[in-house]
Amino acid sequence: MTEDRGPAKKPPMRDVLAEAAFGLFMERGFERTTVDDIVARAGVGRRSFFRYFPSKEDAVFPDHERCLADMTAFLEAAGDDDPVETVCDAARLVLRMYAVNPEFSVQRYRLTREVPGLRTYELSVVRRYERTLAGYLERRAAGAPDAALRAEVIAASVVAAHNNGLRSWLRSGGEGDAGAEVDRALELVRTVWGRAAERPAAAASEDEVIVMVAPKGAPMWRVVQRIESAFGGE
Amino acid sequence: MTEDRGPAKKPPMRDVLAEAAFGLFMERGFERTTVDDIVARAGVGRRSFFRYFPSKEDAVFPDHERCLADMTAFLEAAGDDDPVETVCDAARLVLRMYAVNPEFSVQRYRLTREVPGLRTYELSVVRRYERTLAGYLERRAAGAPDAALRAEVIAASVVAAHNNGLRSWLRSGGEGDAGAEVDRALELVRTVWGRAAERPAAAASEDEVIVMVAPKGAPMWRVVQRIESAFGGE
Repeated sequence: MTEDRGPAKKPPMRDVLAEAAFGLFMERGFERTTVDDIVARAGVGRRSFFRYFPSKEDAVFPDHERCLADMTAFLEAAGDDDPVETVCDAARLVLRMYAVNPEFSVQRYRLTREVPGLRTYELSVVRRYERTLAGYLERRAAGAPDAALRAEVIAASVVAAHNNGLRSWLRSGGEGDAGAEVDRALELVRTVWGRAAERPAAAASEDEVIVMVAPKGAPMWRVVQRIESAFGGE
Repeated sequence: MTEDRGPAKKPPMRDVLAEAAFGLFMERGFERTTVDDIVARAGVGRRSFFRYFPSKEDAVFPDHERCLADMTAFLEAAGDDDPVETVCDAARLVLRMYAVNPEFSVQRYRLTREVPGLRTYELSVVRRYERTLAGYLERRAAGAPDAALRAEVIAASVVAAHNNGLRSWLRSGGEGDAGAEVDRALELVRTVWGRAAERPAAAASEDEVIVMVAPKGAPMWRVVQRIESAFGGE
């Protein structure tokens, strides 16, 4: 996820274009910058731009396509671990992409909040991540009743939690530990949807625990009766 | 939510424009239809169109603004009920808007799947519903630790479940009971995030003693489900 750029190494054209584009967006605003302005600054022809980016919006988010490909590959290579843990780990790939360059990520976050077209673009990208995670979860739960529903709800939860953590970090100006923010947020999802949720019966045979809710001053005979009926009845 | 249109009553200009627009989109395709085509068919001037719709996309979804306003009003008027039940009810307002005119909703669903610009538009609208629900949940949980995180994750879950149910119904061609599809989907969210999850003990009556056997590491939703069935079943 890190980029090695030796001082003598010429950066790839794609990076040059993205950097020229972002610089202009920050200086002049996104709407007032044309593709012609961008290629002029990068010192290349107009067709070079469209070879790398389908649109101006894509140049603002140059790494999402690669990150989506990384996520897909990560999920394809995942083993039999808890699927919810796996999608949380997959979501962390997005965070890491942002965390590689905090200053750029924070500036872009601010730019995105000001330009409706970029917000919409971002929503589309987020939706693609969400569908990638949901697709994986559905395949893992294949055949289970409501597999698709469950997969979609869990994927939406993971994405919402991840973005909550990521946004906290971006709002703070990229200070502090982005990973810790996102871990804290994902913890809520893991607690609610983690593996035990998938096959509680298998886990139950392992180690039973009795959770009891009783009013203050409940008579012991009633407590004992309930414990007995809980064991006998189920 | 229903529209009363007597045979002798002239439909409002807004409806005339939306109908002309949609007819043309179905006949010629969304991209190949211009605003000039729409106003020509509706028999009005170009400025009339933009008085009602900021863009061509808005004419495809003429009722979302009103539905968002209805949702906001509904949430403002909501009492002390379980906030998760309340946001599920609020989400059902969207479903009802679709269910008013199944044929139109199904045609639009098919059109939207073919036109990237409409899909993006829809994502923006969905996001606005999600934020409206999250805002309400956060206000209800004000002061609680992680109120915003929790609100965002629950709102995302509600929206994902609602849309899963809505999509099932749309894919089936608008046959069957849309409400039942959505209720079934929302049930998953209610089980996991509903009030019982917040304070299970408070629901117990004075002399109740509840004994529950749960596997170690059981997810909260399953614990809650057990507690609920204990309350309901006894």
